[in-house]
Amino acid sequence: MEALHDAVALHADGGALVGQVHEGWDVFGVPHGGYLLALAGNAVLTATGAPDLFTITTHYLRKARHEPVRFHVTRVGGSRRFTTVTATAVQGEDVVLSVMASVGDRTAFEGPAWRRSDPWSPDAAGLTPRAGTPEMERVTGGGAFRTPEVSARAGERLQVDTLGFAGGVPDGTGEIRAVAETLPADQLGALVACDVTPPAAWNALGAQGWVPTVELTAHVRARTGTGPLAVAVESRHIGDGFLDEDAVVHDAHGRLMVQSRQLARWTA
Amino acid sequence: MEALHDAVALHADGGALVGQVHEGWDVFGVPHGGYLLALAGNAVLTATGAPDLFTITTHYLRKARHEPVRFHVTRVGGSRRFTTVTATAVQGEDVVLSVMASVGDRTAFEGPAWRRSDPWSPDAAGLTPRAGTPEMERVTGGGAFRTPEVSARAGERLQVDTLGFAGGVPDGTGEIRAVAETLPADQLGALVACDVTPPAAWNALGAQGWVPTVELTAHVRARTGTGPLAVAVESRHIGDGFLDEDAVVHDAHGRLMVQSRQLARWTA
Repeated sequence: MEALHDAVALHADGGALVGQVHEGWDVFGVPHGGYLLALAGNAVLTATGAPDLFTITTHYLRKARHEPVRFHVTRVGGSRRFTTVTATAVQGEDVVLSVMASVGDRTAFEGPAWRRSDPWSPDAAGLTPRAGTPEMERVTGGGAFRTPEVSARAGERLQVDTLGFAGGVPDGTGEIRAVAETLPADQLGALVACDVTPPAAWNALGAQGWVPTVELTAHVRARTGTGPLAVAVESRHIGDGFLDEDAVVHDAHGRLMVQSRQLARWTA
Repeated sequence: MEALHDAVALHADGGALVGQVHEGWDVFGVPHGGYLLALAGNAVLTATGAPDLFTITTHYLRKARHEPVRFHVTRVGGSRRFTTVTATAVQGEDVVLSVMASVGDRTAFEGPAWRRSDPWSPDAAGLTPRAGTPEMERVTGGGAFRTPEVSARAGERLQVDTLGFAGGVPDGTGEIRAVAETLPADQLGALVACDVTPPAAWNALGAQGWVPTVELTAHVRARTGTGPLAVAVESRHIGDGFLDEDAVVHDAHGRLMVQSRQLARWTA
């Protein structure tokens, strides 16, 4: 199976970085938002030479296609330890993504550790399952829920007690949990992971329609970790055609890799 | 007292929009991040002619000064119902803010309503106090905690049971709640409100040092509401010199106005 790092590879071409939107990293033929985010993240790291993404925002302007993609990365400004850039991802004449990120070297920072003690904490909620944890199951084809290509690539297994939507009975929690067994446990893998589950809103209002991302911002909190990655996703507010979706991605030792939030549209 | 709308006023000058970073909207002399966000939001709305911000991200590159500020707003792309722009806020030679936003007209969207039932929900937690609610109190000068200028402008009153940090005994919750009685109950007021409390992390690790924002993203979920605005802020993960801070801003009827999240630095 093609590794993520091959699927986000880039080469310089004039002032641009050129990659390919690969097949297989998609949702029923539509290139996956988290995969495009990882592509954009790799473009930002490559263009700046920085080792670490701190925060990256992507606006999804048009559906990407399985074609070459050109990233134009522009330095906006910065300071001693931060560089801020904007970028566009262009396919043909279309701007597909609009990106902003701040990057640097996280080894230049240090500070105390504290984690909120609430049900959303990974320790409290068992968000760090190891491979084979029985309460996780692979969602396969058939029935009410088909497996998107990107889920297969990620080795995604969904926690059964957050799967009500797949049987037509949403849990009413607005929450889904999963592990991604075959994504690399690094910042690019975690960027895919934060968007890899079905929409958490399906566990609120039911599995219906597309939930296209308008904007996704990911705070990257670690450069590397130990796989598999664990993903917990929740929506809190659906209304007037929009919704939020938060994700936290931890490594197998409970290390926070990524916190993300997206604004998406409810189209059903 | 000068109204927010006067403090974010802009005029066209060539291809730029020029405003002034006003005194009084600051934290002990440093212009306030939420106020700068509202200035940026107004620049985006003015440049595009759109009535609604959907999502706006600001990276804080340098401390702003109480001087004129020039916004350069550039259209990146868009579709029938969305326009995406980048913008910079420049003072002298310095890029102070780097901004990305998607805007449009929210009356073109509709959909069902759902709200997660958890302690973070405004109904469950009493996040919609009316003026005079006794459990809120005005934090005044003196003691361990002085009132920043922006808090006075906002008419901020903090909920006493989230004030442990002010007496030197953090509650350990990483959470602060407040009302902002004199901010306008509209999208620009809500952008100030989402950053107007003391750092929620002070109620985890204690009130010490600056907590400068690296990046703040706000999802605007309503154009206008009914004041006063209620603000609930929490941090979940502090570590390695960084932290997250989430805020939700509701109007007096429990209508969600803004959800925001920032990545900030813990410098103590």
